[in-house]
Parts: sequence; structure tokens; C-alpha cells
Amino acid sequence: MTDTLARLQQVLEARKQAEPDSSYVASLHAKGLNKILEKVGEESVEAILAAKDAATSGDNSDLIYETADLWFHSLVMLSHLGESHEAVLNELARRFDLSGLEEKASRNT
Amino acid sequence: MTDTLARLQQVLEARKQAEPDSSYVASLHAKGLNKILEKVGEESVEAILAAKDAATSGDNSDLIYETADLWFHSLVMLSHLGESHEAVLNELARRFDLSGLEEKASRNT
Amino acid sequence: MTDTLARLQQVLEARKQAEPDSSYVASLHAKGLNKILEKVGEESVEAILAAKDAATSGDNSDLIYETADLWFHSLVMLSHLGESHEAVLNELARRFDLSGLEEKASRNT
Amino acid sequence: MTDTLARLQQVLEARKQAEPDSSYVASLHAKGLNKILEKVGEESVEAILAAKDAATSGDNSDLIYETADLWFHSLVMLSHLGESHEAVLNELARRFDLSGLEEKASRNT
Repeated sequence: MTDTLARLQQVLEARKQAEPDSSYVASLHAKGLNKILEKVGEESVEAILAAKDAATSGDNSDLIYETADLWFHSLVMLSHLGESHEAVLNELARRFDLSGLEEKASRNT
Repeated sequence: MTDTLARLQQVLEARKQAEPDSSYVASLHAKGLNKILEKVGEESVEAILAAKDAATSGDNSDLIYETADLWFHSLVMLSHLGESHEAVLNELARRFDLSGLEEKASRNT
Repeated sequence: MTDTLARLQQVLEARKQAEPDSSYVASLHAKGLNKILEKVGEESVEAILAAKDAATSGDNSDLIYETADLWFHSLVMLSHLGESHEAVLNELARRFDLSGLEEKASRNT
Repeated sequence: MTDTLARLQQVLEARKQAEPDSSYVASLHAKGLNKILEKVGEESVEAILAAKDAATSGDNSDLIYETADLWFHSLVMLSHLGESHEAVLNELARRFDLSGLEEKASRNT
């Protein structure tokens, strides 16, 4: 589980080099940054709508599916600009001081 | 690195139970789903603007910061509805057949 | 010029009653609210990207085209929920005290 | 009613020249294009959420309020880039052939 983003990153980098006709990721890179950003925007709205519907129905399956779409397209955005998930996770770790969390947790509980 | 999302999830769950005054995450849960979804929408637009500016300036620092904000608020959205990052990563792993990737990679390369 | 929104409203109401196959507006209503809201979200992102590009290129044609798309789909959203442009214009007039603007303008200038 | 957008445009142009401290519109222009576009994105998400809630509650008042906010900030966006509502209404009139609608309507009814 823990390495899913790292493995996905490998897939994304491999497909970035592929022929546009051969993969969805390659076709997004070929269409350019605006097309990728339109997809990030679309998927964020679809995740928001899925969350509203999940709150009413109690069924989270669309929410999970649309959030996966949102994260996926944000990874393509990062890849298009030469970044990876690692920079974002590092920023989150820095912000929440997560590097030392395990040690603190072992003392506190 | 690999466990950053799992550690962040622990932080988010702990803060979900906290007093609204004591933490930003607790205050978001107290304000309710619409407020959380407004933040997901805001951060997706800020990430999109940061990506446009990064493409012009060559400086990715805002892009990383805003994408971290987007992922963070989407994790709060999942948490508010009783889900976690694991369901989303499982969906991505299923979609890209990532569980078997290591084995395939060792055969193909 | 001034009645463009009123005329467009007439078109939208007529097409709301039409067969889904016969018009884009009818097909949006048939697909339902979520589809209409996805389009509002998409068009807002496309307008935002067009604005960023216009600021760089000095060419506003895409900006105008995408803002027209955004207004159009927000009118379909209003129509789907039984409202029209008039309620929104009334709210803007109320907010900016526009009803009395002509009189004030004639006194001030 | 019909001239609400034209009157609002006059207000927006006057405030564009004002001191940033003296008006919200002036402060948006002073903060720059990204801030204005963030507001367009925010208000589109708030309109989308209001539409979902209106569909459940039957109360359209928030929908009207948030759509007014969306149109208002898209007018500020146009103004910031030297355009007005007229260019957008012309595009909509061209697209739907609205200029001749009155004549057609008078023949048909």
C-alpha cells in the first residue's frame, strides 16, 4: 500500500515518454498544460459533487473514484512540470512535522 | 517518505476529535461539509494558477505548496465522510494494476 | 444589446421543453443537475485559464468566448432549478443600489 | 432591469480607478489578476454547492446570491483585462442568433 504513489509515479514517467496514441497520460502531455489543468479542475468539481451526494446517500464509492481521478490528474500536472509526488509529500511532512511523529507517538501512548 | 500519508491520516483523525478552537482541522469539521468542499475548490484553483505561473517562471515552489494544500483538504474531505487515503490509493492501485507492478518490472527490465 | 439576456432566456426556456436529441440545452436538462454543474465548473476553469493566457498574449478572444460559455451554463443551471437571469440581476441591482443610479448620476455629473 | 449590467459596468469602471482602501473592487484590482481569478473559482464552487442544496431544500435564495457573486467577479475579471459585459453578450447573441429573435417572435406569436 505505502508505495502506491511511488509505483504510480514510475508508471506516469514511463507513459510521459510514450507515443500520444498509445496512452491516455501521453495524450494529456501532448495536448499540453492547459488540457491537464482543465482535467484537474473538472475532477475537483466531480469530487465535490460526489461528496455532496455521498453525504445524502451514505454511499462513498463515487467519492473515492472521483478523488482518485483528482489525485491522478494532479500527479500528471506535477509530472508535466518536472515535479513528483515526493515534493508534495515532503511539504506535507514538513508542515505537520511528520518525520518525528513516530517517536513522539511512542512516547505519548 | 512512504508513510507520510499514513502519518498525516493519524494526525487528521486525532484532530477531527479535537475542540474546534484548538485546531484548523477541527474547525473545518465543525463548520461542516460545504466549508470543506469550498476549500477543496479554492485550493484546486490556486494549484491551477500556480501551475500556469510555474510554466512561465520556471519556479515550482508555489505549485508544490498549493498541491499540498489541495491534497490536504481532499484528505479532510475524505475524513469528514468516514474515508481515508487508503481507499483512494487502493482505487489507484486497482486501476493501474500496481500491486503486480514490481513483479512485471523485474521480468521486463 | 440590452435585451440579450432576456432573449437568451426565452431560447433556454423553449429548449428546456424540447426533445433531448434535438438540442444541447435539452440534453443537459435530461442528463440532470450534476452534469449541468460539472459544465459550470469546467467553464469557470476554462475562463480562468483563458484570462491567464490573455494577460500574457494580449489577445482577449478566448477570454470572451469562455466567459460566454460560463454565463451560458450558469443560465442553464438557473433554468434547471426554476430561476432566471432576472433574479440574479435583481440581486446585483439591490446590492449596488443600481435602481437609483441614473438619478444619482444625473445629479453628480 | 435590462440595463442592470450596463449600470453595474459603470460602477465597476469608476471603482477600478478608486483608491484600493476605498472599495472592494479597487482592492481586487490592486491585488492583481490571480486574486480576481481565485474569487471567480471560489464563487463558481459556492454556486455549485448552493445549486445542490437548492435541489434538496427547494430554497433558491443562496443559489441566486452565489450566482450573483459569480457574475460579479467575472465582470471584475473582464474589467481587469480591458473588456466588458458587452463583448460577452455580443458573443452570446452571435452564437444564438439573438439579434433577429424579436422579428421572428413577432411573426410567430
